[in-house]
Parts: sequence; C-alpha cells; structure tokens
Amino acid sequence: MDQISEPAKERLLYLMRVLDHAGVNLITSGEIEQKTGWSSHTIRKDISYLGGDFGSAMGYDVETLKGAIRSALGLNRKRTFCIVGLGRLGSAYLNFDGYTEEGLELAAGFDSSVNRVEILKSPVPLFPVYKMAEVISRFHIEMALLCVPGSAAQQSAEKLAAAGIKAIVNFAPVVLDLGPEIFVRNVYVVNDLRALAVKLPRDISEPDH
Amino acid sequence: MDQISEPAKERLLYLMRVLDHAGVNLITSGEIEQKTGWSSHTIRKDISYLGGDFGSAMGYDVETLKGAIRSALGLNRKRTFCIVGLGRLGSAYLNFDGYTEEGLELAAGFDSSVNRVEILKSPVPLFPVYKMAEVISRFHIEMALLCVPGSAAQQSAEKLAAAGIKAIVNFAPVVLDLGPEIFVRNVYVVNDLRALAVKLPRDISEPDH
Repeated sequence: MDQISEPAKERLLYLMRVLDHAGVNLITSGEIEQKTGWSSHTIRKDISYLGGDFGSAMGYDVETLKGAIRSALGLNRKRTFCIVGLGRLGSAYLNFDGYTEEGLELAAGFDSSVNRVEILKSPVPLFPVYKMAEVISRFHIEMALLCVPGSAAQQSAEKLAAAGIKAIVNFAPVVLDLGPEIFVRNVYVVNDLRALAVKLPRDISEPDH
Repeated sequence: MDQISEPAKERLLYLMRVLDHAGVNLITSGEIEQKTGWSSHTIRKDISYLGGDFGSAMGYDVETLKGAIRSALGLNRKRTFCIVGLGRLGSAYLNFDGYTEEGLELAAGFDSSVNRVEILKSPVPLFPVYKMAEVISRFHIEMALLCVPGSAAQQSAEKLAAAGIKAIVNFAPVVLDLGPEIFVRNVYVVNDLRALAVKLPRDISEPDH
C-alpha cells in the first residue's frame, strides 16, 4: 500500500463505491470515466497500482476489480466495530445486514440506558456503557459508529479512545476534540442535502400560501 | 456560480463542512491548509471566488466566510425536502433539529404503512405514500431522503421522480436507475467504515477465543 498515493487511495475507495452500485458484471473504462469524471489516463494509472490483469475488450470484471482494490488497500482483513448510542439511528445500524460481506464485523452495541440494552432486539450482544472498556478490549474492537446525541458525543468519544478504539464514524453534528491518533469521519445528512442543493436550479417559485 | 469550476465548488462545500466543525470564530489559512490538505495557493484562489474581504492578520471570520460560500453556491435560498420511509433511520432524520439553520426545510414524511403515519410523533405532517405526488406538488418539495428498505428503493425513487423531485439522498444499499435529470447521492455507512479501515494498522492480532 505504501507506494499508492493518498489521492489514489481515495480514488480507489471511490471507485469501489461506484463498482458497488454499478449493478453489472463488466464495466468499461469509458463507463468508469463517465461515472467518476476522471480522465482515462488517471483511471488506467490507478488500476495499474492493483497489479493484475482485469481488462478485456468487454471491460473490467467488477468482482475481480473489487477484490484487487480490497487487497491493495488492506480491506481483505476482517475489521471489528461497535455501535455506541442505540436510539433510532444506532438501532437502525444495529439491524443493518450488509456488513459481513464487506469484511466488517459488528461485535457489540452500547447504550447508557440499561433498560434499553435489555429490551432492544439485536443480532449482537448489547452492553451498558460502563462495560465499554472491558468489552472493547475483550472483543478487540477497532472502530465505532458514534450515534449518541450531540451533547454526549465528546464524552463518549473520549471513552472510546481511552478503551483503544482507533477510528470513529461520528453521526453527531459536533466537533470531536480527540488526539491525532484517532481517525474520525463526520457523517452529517445536512452535508448531503447541501451538495445536492448546489445542483438545483435557483429560480423555482415560492410555495403557495 | 457559473464561473466557479466544479472542483472548486466541491472544495467550497468541503470547506463549509470544515468550518461547521471548526468550533472557532476565526480560522487562519494555515489551519484550513492543515484540516483540508490543500495548498495555500488553492485555498486563496477558492476564497477569491467569493469576492469579499474576509481576511485579517487574525484569520478569516468563520461565519462571514460560511455566509459568502452559501451565497456563491446558491445555498442561501430555502430548499424543501421530504423523508420517504419512516422506519428507524427515517424517523431518526424526521426528529433531527439542525435543518432550519442550514436553510433546509423538512416539509413532510411518507410511509407505506398508514398505521405508522398515524402513530409516529413528528414535527412535520406525515402522509401515506399514495398521497406523495399530491403533497410534493402542493408543498413544492424539491429533494428527498430515501430511507426505505433496499427492496422498495427503486419503486419509491421512481414515484419521487414522477412527482417532480429533483434530488435524492439514497440510504438504501442499491443502485437507483433514474434519468440523468435526477441527482442522487448514495449514503452508505459501509463506505465510511471502509475509508477508516484503510487507515488502520494491518497487523493487529486476532481476537481471543
């Protein structure tokens, strides 16, 4: 992986998303160009990092290409994660069933409410937050989805960091102040709506009253 | 907006996210450089598109800069959206309260279950899906969060498109096959976990047994 530049890694991750959603078995570089906006030169260069032969006159084999990207980016190793905060959002992700095929293992869920931990239906064991450090260590959990309210996010993130978590997907709309050794991705639906709003025409009439 | 290149627009949107999470009143170009990885030249050029004077020896004023980005990208116009599918994920976003300050107006929610529509607590009116076209037209709704199960996503998306929706944030892990006039953003937690997994060390020992 060391020889792949950071921008190329980002592009390969993005390419994997495109392939996830391609809905075909073979994809041509022209189709990749169209879906990504990258030049054919960039696409060929990025795919050359993968060091295999995926091409044919018909296009690249999608599953083979995905496998090679996984391998090049170190994604073929199983990664274990937990969910912290089991309100609506947290319990939605608790019951999602697409993790395993992606090499991701949901190992546990945590909530500050002992009652909620006891009554929620879940495919994985649930624990009250005071057991967080012990469970994270025991299950070798590396990542977390942080689904607590904004007011609780910083404190929960600190507990996760102290317990040895290395990476957090933060759904709370707040800045997490953690050391540089913890990787954070902020997921915020407002950003997605904003990115779409930019593309809309500006001249639509106001709603009726 | 026409004179701002697409990559610059993407960067300005990203810069707005950075500013959202900055947690400060003033930000220096050095801090922006550090948080974005862009060169100071790129940052100055992008900010020059905004056509104002935000600088001082102390740094850029965060709120002024955000306002100028909103204006340059056409985000200062109110945009109306709806939520389709009121399961755990949809009802989590129904009860989120950060839209208004971002110029976004949640106008309605839809679910195929009339019963769910009647009993769910909601800050906005809820309707059964058969009223979708009528309500979207009446409220001039432009965007949708699509929170239905994967098996229902394509059909729901087609109904939204037929009703006049121009942009969809798709939370279902499936490819939507829509015309090119509908803008779609696929939001998929597996992508975020994957982007973090790439950064983790590869040599962690296996869990105990």
